[in-house]
Amino acid sequence: MNILDIIAKKRDGLELSSEEINFFICGICDKTIADYQASALLMAIRINGMSARETADLTISMMNSGDVADLSSIGAKTADKHSTGGVGDTVTLIAVPLAAACGCKIAKMSGRALGHTGGTIDKMDSIGINSELSVEELIKNTKTIGCAVAQQTGELAPADKILYQLRDVTATVDSIPLIASSILSKKFATGADVIVLDVKTGSGALMKTLEESKALAKAMVDIGYHTDKRVCAFITGMEQPLGRYIGNRLEVYDAIMALSGKSQGALLDVSVEIAAKMMELSMDIGHEEALSMLKTALESGAGLEKLREMIKAQGGDISVVGDPEKLVIDSKSEVLSEVDGYISSMDTQLIGEAARALGAGRMKKTDPIDFDAGIIMNVKIGDKVNKGDMLACLICADSEKIKIAEEMMKKAIVVSLDKPIIPPVIYDFIQ
Amino acid sequence: MNILDIIAKKRDGLELSSEEINFFICGICDKTIADYQASALLMAIRINGMSARETADLTISMMNSGDVADLSSIGAKTADKHSTGGVGDTVTLIAVPLAAACGCKIAKMSGRALGHTGGTIDKMDSIGINSELSVEELIKNTKTIGCAVAQQTGELAPADKILYQLRDVTATVDSIPLIASSILSKKFATGADVIVLDVKTGSGALMKTLEESKALAKAMVDIGYHTDKRVCAFITGMEQPLGRYIGNRLEVYDAIMALSGKSQGALLDVSVEIAAKMMELSMDIGHEEALSMLKTALESGAGLEKLREMIKAQGGDISVVGDPEKLVIDSKSEVLSEVDGYISSMDTQLIGEAARALGAGRMKKTDPIDFDAGIIMNVKIGDKVNKGDMLACLICADSEKIKIAEEMMKKAIVVSLDKPIIPPVIYDFIQ
Repeated sequence: MNILDIIAKKRDGLELSSEEINFFICGICDKTIADYQASALLMAIRINGMSARETADLTISMMNSGDVADLSSIGAKTADKHSTGGVGDTVTLIAVPLAAACGCKIAKMSGRALGHTGGTIDKMDSIGINSELSVEELIKNTKTIGCAVAQQTGELAPADKILYQLRDVTATVDSIPLIASSILSKKFATGADVIVLDVKTGSGALMKTLEESKALAKAMVDIGYHTDKRVCAFITGMEQPLGRYIGNRLEVYDAIMALSGKSQGALLDVSVEIAAKMMELSMDIGHEEALSMLKTALESGAGLEKLREMIKAQGGDISVVGDPEKLVIDSKSEVLSEVDGYISSMDTQLIGEAARALGAGRMKKTDPIDFDAGIIMNVKIGDKVNKGDMLACLICADSEKIKIAEEMMKKAIVVSLDKPIIPPVIYDFIQ
Repeated sequence: MNILDIIAKKRDGLELSSEEINFFICGICDKTIADYQASALLMAIRINGMSARETADLTISMMNSGDVADLSSIGAKTADKHSTGGVGDTVTLIAVPLAAACGCKIAKMSGRALGHTGGTIDKMDSIGINSELSVEELIKNTKTIGCAVAQQTGELAPADKILYQLRDVTATVDSIPLIASSILSKKFATGADVIVLDVKTGSGALMKTLEESKALAKAMVDIGYHTDKRVCAFITGMEQPLGRYIGNRLEVYDAIMALSGKSQGALLDVSVEIAAKMMELSMDIGHEEALSMLKTALESGAGLEKLREMIKAQGGDISVVGDPEKLVIDSKSEVLSEVDGYISSMDTQLIGEAARALGAGRMKKTDPIDFDAGIIMNVKIGDKVNKGDMLACLICADSEKIKIAEEMMKKAIVVSLDKPIIPPVIYDFIQ
């Protein structure tokens, strides 16, 4: 087998075998295949595509290039959820304890904030939760209380890292099979049997159009069919922030409000659907049964109690569960509407950037995060506003940053005379 | 301008601007563009193609990446010919003196043997002709006697060398626009105004099928239309060696025989057509006029005399012109037919390899050449042979090498019962 034949085959639009794909992945890891050869193949894949079988083989080969967590000692099917990245998207902190309160086993590895989107690990840090668990600790906590969320440990899919760096500088990022295999190789390596995906679509999402989002979701679900993992995907709207609160301690607050039954809306709706799907596929129960169990867990406070247990087990500040108001500091600045009209659209990515500018995210990997900083949205698409009404509230102690973020927010929230069509929260479900 | 946008544009099948192509070529020369980025773009070009305008721009940018000979002081339009590489193809040593005898100005740079094909510079070496001329000497000789043939001096199209090395290891060699621009960037850099191409087709050619050969010829002629060069192309057969003699001193012998009117056939036919076209385009005369002048130059011996002048001007052994038999040594071994039948086909590449195995070419760049060694073909496709008839004669002093070449020749020349269709010498002319 040699890389030239493999490149030529994909160049000519043919299907690569499992062995050829594995030869490629092994070769980029042990450096027997040069970067310029890998990039030629990546371009051929970008242009000529990959079948579902090839994409699954690529996923498995990339997964096997690094550590693969073995969660079998938990003794039950484990579930996980993964979002392609959103703004005000704190689904994990709601769906995980809620599903765990219903008996679902979730040993989850999460990431940090990336670009304009938030990350669960940063939100956990903001209330002192220790996310540096070993796989053994992750398993132990999951066995004891039903759920645990940790930073990714070990070296997950190093081949993906190599390919990603190369794709970034060779105009081969936007390839559905390459994106799908990149996401799932890392996700599969964290060991869960069931993976419920939340593929965002719209102005704040990786995939801006519904068509692209569906294609990515379908590609990932198809990977599941060619492996021993159960994968399904929701397509949910990112035309506006999912929850009202954007920022680290602010999103913990939002999660506690949702789990306490004190706030309704898109964030809770998506969280409940994702929790239900994790339960159905890992516990082998029906949709109605899962929803009914989740309703009980919400109304009884069992979900909130599970969050408290998880925070406690991982050494975080459990006092915030009983007194969430302390998560929202007082330094506020209001963004007001300059005209009368309807909220017609939002540039959600720009809202995410504004939160990052306030300190809720990082510009460089080594930047510190201001856990208090962020944005509270006061409007949704379709809301009627008058001149002077508050659109959003910026939270940050630094007036310079407030000024910058304010300008971004004014640009990001569009008010116009015509009443817009309100975008759905959940567009589709693919399995 | 940045390379990522350029790669993305070609990836999406769009046309690159002259500036973008030049940015790419400058970037690979000054190393501001990485190999892995160049190879991604090469793959996108290989898959999505290039327009004639893009191909011409690529050619000019590659030409300008190195030295460009200025032949303007010759004071007349200069012509050149270029073959894509053949076996028994000594057209240069016939067409150049013949056209020069008719007043055509030819200041030619040639190459050495490559793979299974011969090279004019090696043939000149074999009779002591000095091919290490400076551009000034090349011009002076052309002004004085009408023609000169030299090794390529200076650094011709270094960008082409960089791209070629990358193409070779990324499965992007077989791209018509990349091949066409590679050939013509170097040819344009040698300074001629008129370029007559001889695109070989068949078992001994770079392009094995007529369709591919035509596509390459058309791409190169089209480059001419987008630049200030006149380019035209013959498509000639390489289903069998062009001349009867294969090897260095053997091909000089064949050229002298042709110029003396002592041998007819495909080699002379192609040489006369190419000489005529060089004359027509550089001297602005008609086809019939050119042919008639060439006929006179052949019959009067003026062509042979011009070869003698060129050999003399470049310090070679002029005695071979009067006594060519000394170019053919006695160590001969005959390849005989093992059956009765017709010569139905030849693997011309394998015949070229056999000549190389005898010492007429090099396996490694540094290998010495045995100038005497080679093959004399005794048959053409369509000839009737009986068992025991001589098919070819191998010339080499080393019996081990003879043995190896003999096996190759037996495989290369196919004798069968059905009378084959005799392939044409000239398939097409494109201008």
